[in-house]
Amino acid sequence: MATRWFGAPVQRSEDPRLLRGRGTYVDDIDLPEMLHAAVLRSPYAHARIKRIDAAAARALPGVHLVLTAEDLGELLEPSPLLVPHPALTQPRTQLPLARDEVHYAGAAVAFVVAEDRYLAEDALELIDVDYEPLPVVASLEQAAAEGAPLVHADVPGNVAAHLVQRVGDPEGVIASAPHVLRERFVMERGSAMPMEGRGVVARWDPHEGMLTCWISTQGPIPIRNGLAAMFRLPEHKVRVVAPDVGGGFGTKIMMFYPEEILTPLAALRLGRPVKWIEDRAEHFLAANQERGQIHDVEYAFDDQGILLAVRDVFLHDTGAYTPYGIIVPIITACTLPGPYRLRHYYSEFKVLYTNKVPVSPYRGAGRPHAVFVMERIMDRIATELGLDPLEVRSRNFIRPEEFPWDVGLVYQDGGPTIYDSGNYQAGLERLKEALGYEQFREEQRRARERGRYLGIGVACYVEGTGIGPYEGAQVRVESDGRVYVSTGVTTQGQAHQTTFAQIVADQLGVDPRDVLVTTGDSQAFYWGVGTFASRAATVAGSAIHLAAVKVREKAKQVAADLFEASPEDIELADGKVFVRDAPQRALTLGQVAIASNPLRYSYGENARKLMQMQLAGPRPGPALPEERGGPGLEATAFYSPPRGTFASGVHGAIVEVDPRTGMVTFLKYVAVHDCGRVINPLVVEGQVHGGVAQGIGGAFYERLVFNEEGQLLNGSFMDYLLPTVEEIPPLQVEHVETPSPLNPLGVKGAGEAGTIPVAALFASALDDALAPFGLRIREMPLDPCRLKQLLKEYQNT
Amino acid sequence: MATRWFGAPVQRSEDPRLLRGRGTYVDDIDLPEMLHAAVLRSPYAHARIKRIDAAAARALPGVHLVLTAEDLGELLEPSPLLVPHPALTQPRTQLPLARDEVHYAGAAVAFVVAEDRYLAEDALELIDVDYEPLPVVASLEQAAAEGAPLVHADVPGNVAAHLVQRVGDPEGVIASAPHVLRERFVMERGSAMPMEGRGVVARWDPHEGMLTCWISTQGPIPIRNGLAAMFRLPEHKVRVVAPDVGGGFGTKIMMFYPEEILTPLAALRLGRPVKWIEDRAEHFLAANQERGQIHDVEYAFDDQGILLAVRDVFLHDTGAYTPYGIIVPIITACTLPGPYRLRHYYSEFKVLYTNKVPVSPYRGAGRPHAVFVMERIMDRIATELGLDPLEVRSRNFIRPEEFPWDVGLVYQDGGPTIYDSGNYQAGLERLKEALGYEQFREEQRRARERGRYLGIGVACYVEGTGIGPYEGAQVRVESDGRVYVSTGVTTQGQAHQTTFAQIVADQLGVDPRDVLVTTGDSQAFYWGVGTFASRAATVAGSAIHLAAVKVREKAKQVAADLFEASPEDIELADGKVFVRDAPQRALTLGQVAIASNPLRYSYGENARKLMQMQLAGPRPGPALPEERGGPGLEATAFYSPPRGTFASGVHGAIVEVDPRTGMVTFLKYVAVHDCGRVINPLVVEGQVHGGVAQGIGGAFYERLVFNEEGQLLNGSFMDYLLPTVEEIPPLQVEHVETPSPLNPLGVKGAGEAGTIPVAALFASALDDALAPFGLRIREMPLDPCRLKQLLKEYQNT
Repeated sequence: MATRWFGAPVQRSEDPRLLRGRGTYVDDIDLPEMLHAAVLRSPYAHARIKRIDAAAARALPGVHLVLTAEDLGELLEPSPLLVPHPALTQPRTQLPLARDEVHYAGAAVAFVVAEDRYLAEDALELIDVDYEPLPVVASLEQAAAEGAPLVHADVPGNVAAHLVQRVGDPEGVIASAPHVLRERFVMERGSAMPMEGRGVVARWDPHEGMLTCWISTQGPIPIRNGLAAMFRLPEHKVRVVAPDVGGGFGTKIMMFYPEEILTPLAALRLGRPVKWIEDRAEHFLAANQERGQIHDVEYAFDDQGILLAVRDVFLHDTGAYTPYGIIVPIITACTLPGPYRLRHYYSEFKVLYTNKVPVSPYRGAGRPHAVFVMERIMDRIATELGLDPLEVRSRNFIRPEEFPWDVGLVYQDGGPTIYDSGNYQAGLERLKEALGYEQFREEQRRARERGRYLGIGVACYVEGTGIGPYEGAQVRVESDGRVYVSTGVTTQGQAHQTTFAQIVADQLGVDPRDVLVTTGDSQAFYWGVGTFASRAATVAGSAIHLAAVKVREKAKQVAADLFEASPEDIELADGKVFVRDAPQRALTLGQVAIASNPLRYSYGENARKLMQMQLAGPRPGPALPEERGGPGLEATAFYSPPRGTFASGVHGAIVEVDPRTGMVTFLKYVAVHDCGRVINPLVVEGQVHGGVAQGIGGAFYERLVFNEEGQLLNGSFMDYLLPTVEEIPPLQVEHVETPSPLNPLGVKGAGEAGTIPVAALFASALDDALAPFGLRIREMPLDPCRLKQLLKEYQNT
Repeated sequence: MATRWFGAPVQRSEDPRLLRGRGTYVDDIDLPEMLHAAVLRSPYAHARIKRIDAAAARALPGVHLVLTAEDLGELLEPSPLLVPHPALTQPRTQLPLARDEVHYAGAAVAFVVAEDRYLAEDALELIDVDYEPLPVVASLEQAAAEGAPLVHADVPGNVAAHLVQRVGDPEGVIASAPHVLRERFVMERGSAMPMEGRGVVARWDPHEGMLTCWISTQGPIPIRNGLAAMFRLPEHKVRVVAPDVGGGFGTKIMMFYPEEILTPLAALRLGRPVKWIEDRAEHFLAANQERGQIHDVEYAFDDQGILLAVRDVFLHDTGAYTPYGIIVPIITACTLPGPYRLRHYYSEFKVLYTNKVPVSPYRGAGRPHAVFVMERIMDRIATELGLDPLEVRSRNFIRPEEFPWDVGLVYQDGGPTIYDSGNYQAGLERLKEALGYEQFREEQRRARERGRYLGIGVACYVEGTGIGPYEGAQVRVESDGRVYVSTGVTTQGQAHQTTFAQIVADQLGVDPRDVLVTTGDSQAFYWGVGTFASRAATVAGSAIHLAAVKVREKAKQVAADLFEASPEDIELADGKVFVRDAPQRALTLGQVAIASNPLRYSYGENARKLMQMQLAGPRPGPALPEERGGPGLEATAFYSPPRGTFASGVHGAIVEVDPRTGMVTFLKYVAVHDCGRVINPLVVEGQVHGGVAQGIGGAFYERLVFNEEGQLLNGSFMDYLLPTVEEIPPLQVEHVETPSPLNPLGVKGAGEAGTIPVAALFASALDDALAPFGLRIREMPLDPCRLKQLLKEYQNT
């Protein structure tokens, strides 16, 4: 494969548009006669709805529609369970509007459509709902407790799912191991805070019989299929577009959010476009969240620091519903072994309902928890044995010659968990050097002498990426020589326009600027899954590559016919298709595109030259036969990965802690990352930067605090702390490349990695900085207050 | 192939919609903020434009845009030459708006867009054009005359093209033949008069960067490609829709008509939708016409009536331009040999410019002329030798065992003219019996005794149909089990919805009512050519068949996986997919569609059953791999015919002529038609009925009369006679089926056949009826006045 562009630090082609405010987000869709919607949400985390009186709201001038559960007809059906699993014996999904009971504060109860949003919100206040409060399950501990109230009356013990996996003989090994420790680790909720919240615009075109929805989503095609089924429309008569999306982070892969059903329903009922835009308060109350788990872990190791066995039993908080099945805890279970040669592993989890916002994957998706547990274990082994924590990791690493490495678990896609490739030791070496690990201890010592608490931390991870089932793509060269690519994945800022163009540019011998990519439009590419699980480059990228290869071969064939040459002698470069060693026998790629369709309408100089050539030669024969893939210089390809790829990395940081305030400052941060072959280092580094920033938020700032009534106490940016550029240190990103043997590009996913090890790293560095206090961090996220409180507890003991 | 539906007289599924006025024609497209256009047309057939002053029109309140040639910028380029040919040495095509010179009365000179059509037409009257009249070439004779004025100053002798073809040794055979005759045949212009004239609505959506045009056209996809090139838009950002089209007949395949460029241009300039609808007066002046030819033919035959050689030299009137190349006269040349074993044939034609409306194919497309010449020859041979005219034909027929029959000419598609199959004698026998041929002579004799002039006529033809280059189709089963078919051809009333559905229904085991067909929308199917040349059933029908076969095989494969059976044991019937001999192991076709996409969103009962089945069995594996054709129960196929198919037929009629008035009444009309395998006899008979009606118009009523200034004298339905139901006799249609070996369905085209032999038949019957007067018809069309005039001439000689 020619690789002029693959691997090059090509500038992001989407930036000139986005940075100049020319993006089109859902709220930028402004249609004639459009109406605006607002949602009435439950103020109770758990209550019975005794009566809803919407008469006054309906009577308000300017209000066009008020929907409550009883107005939904056959749409009053629970949302689909996206990823069923045999262990999920008590799945529950949400109704578009609550009927008899609400199960979390923020649940949608009524939907109002009015001339403008102000009026719609005024109307919400006129809706009279008679609630009877019910006992609330506000925490995992409470959900698990004997005799706890029930979130769903018909789900005993609040247990949605229970899954056990076992590798080797963990109990036997633990029973005979020289060292065995037990710890509890607690993870609290945080959530994705995309700059753009959710949003839906829906339009019904009676002329075409076409429903078009613009949704800030990561998965427009599955939504298209669902809306078609719900509204009994042919699937191709529903178009779902994810235009520019201002951040997704997993929270926008979920479906169906109630608003994604109610907004199109209103457009269909009213025959006018309807817009609903989530405001920030709603995002806190009604966009899915993650991260709540409690792990009780028992682990055994020998005198050399070799980890012998792990027994991890954890509870997973799924909130009030299981819209996304049990994917998150499965990922936690499968991620826990990390880069280590763990041969005896017991994993058990229970998924528990609580009266809180439902849970679905958020960037990292169960992995930060697992990495937190395992990396805490590694640090503890080092402490216990008086070994260097990096040395402990090295001793436990799976070695390069051991790949493919079968972890022994069933992965989220139902297949085995098999690492495809990696070189963990190389990454660690790179980190040590970049971090100045060897020199640091002296620096730390001197700082302590001056009363400053510096610490160094490290965290390794392995991340399953690029799962199936498939994506597809079409690559089409048009008569102006430009290349149009469409694929079913979406874009939330990942620079797909740039990287996908690089993939194609190499195959077709064009500049990436002449490759234009469309994502997230079910009309532009009909089939696909979505952008999540760090899978776009791996799965869609591979499909794009395969389609581009087909187009290249077709171009060679067509040009060979025109030049009466052999296809093997045709080359593509600089936008030209020419006979090797005879560059005067050349056509532009656009001319070859014209020639690929016998009846392509010919206009302008480009086409005239071609027509003269054809008239001068033999009369044009019949069209490209079926065997060549039909007319047009275009091809469609699908790619189904045999199984997921496994990226990896190690982050290291030096922090300074002020024990008096609990404030932590990053002095240095190095991320070593291996996502296989790097399509564009600028883009991967950008992904790592963003991920680390979000990880720092999840480690030290972003914690959703619920009280015992299940009420969110910090549901605004006044109270919920997001790290700003002030809190994010300069980042150094280093690449290790162990190409994946599983796909034609050798790539692995890079979207989530940055986030995954940060909480573990943070704990590691804090422990190190505060070693004089004997501190051991066993929870995430922290925040300055909590850290100060912990220090106080440790000082008191 | 199962053929439960293929061949069945299924009722037209489009009729309930169309007959209740629920069709959507271009004029039914009503968009918010839409403006309306009108065209200023030249009153002169040939004139220099010295000056155009549009200031007053532009100043009229409510006028948004006035375009003249100088406003067109780079669009002021001649329309493309659609079918270039080496013999067409002087092609000329039209500018969107005339610049310095107009070449026919009706040529577009200015384009006005206003709030409504009334205002736009008012504005036309305010445009002041200073014309300097130039000498006019109003007829073929005049165009060919020595020292004739020139239509285009740079085209000597008005000769656009000159083509000679020769088979065998016509001159040698004629020189030594026992009988040689010479005759001149004159064909005058007629034209397609669809109920719906032309029309264009254009909308520019700046949000999507998408230009959408609704055009009453037979070829939206070529127009899409052309508009994209003209407006420098990506091709996929131009959508052209031919909605319901109220008749095309060839006149709507032409492109580009000026209005098809100017209307979208106006929409782009103004940012508002623009509509232009052709009124009937415009249709007479600016929609392409046909039929003008003068043949000088010399032919030789022996004593047994065997035709030995033909030498045909003809002039073809192309009007002011050659937008469609020289397809029409080439077809005339190739059609002339007809069903006869003509082994010595000289064909020469010149294409001449005249100052009249440009010429492009009209139903029959050069064939009525050729059949007229050849059938006149056959009748004359019979008369000369005192033989029965049917017997003469029989003696000359190509015999069934002689197929494939190479006529020896280069066809319109550049390939050889090879008849694929036929049985002409069988058709003639069928006709004789249906017509009561044997009994007629006695009836005729008795009528003559009572002063009534009855005549019997017959005319045979062979019609090239179903030419390439290709068409394509997609067949998609959706999750509700319905089948959606899309193809690039258009529909102007041919019942494609019905017949295409029959083709698919047989393959997928569904009722044709569950097969929904979309035609004529470049967004629904991206590639294709168009509906003309009686090619839709043959070429698009075959593509649809191939796609349906692929879908059937895919359904078998998917169901086999689910049932753990062999694909060979899977059957499709009654909307179900089941294991042979185990009908309880069955899924609906919709469930198989859901199962064809691993992430197809599942909603409702249909999907739940499937999900339970999948959960009960092994976990769903990865997606359908690329080799199975990607996700979804769908497939796309293209079909390129190796060469055209050749339909044939023979029409016979009994007429009565009133020599005092020149009126002719059909007493009986029988059409025997062979279009290979018949998909739907109702539909084929409908096509024959319509064709015969149009043929009767072209034989006896519809004649465009131009004066020596090139002005059309009968440009309204007050003067241009269209036959009504009163003039059309009851028709008896008989089928002969000689399947075509060239395509998987065995079909041949049926769209134009009805029209082709009618003028020849009419002349034959008239000659027979008026034998006592010694009349010999040598022109088409006639009309009552002209017939009376001819009788007078014959009586005077």
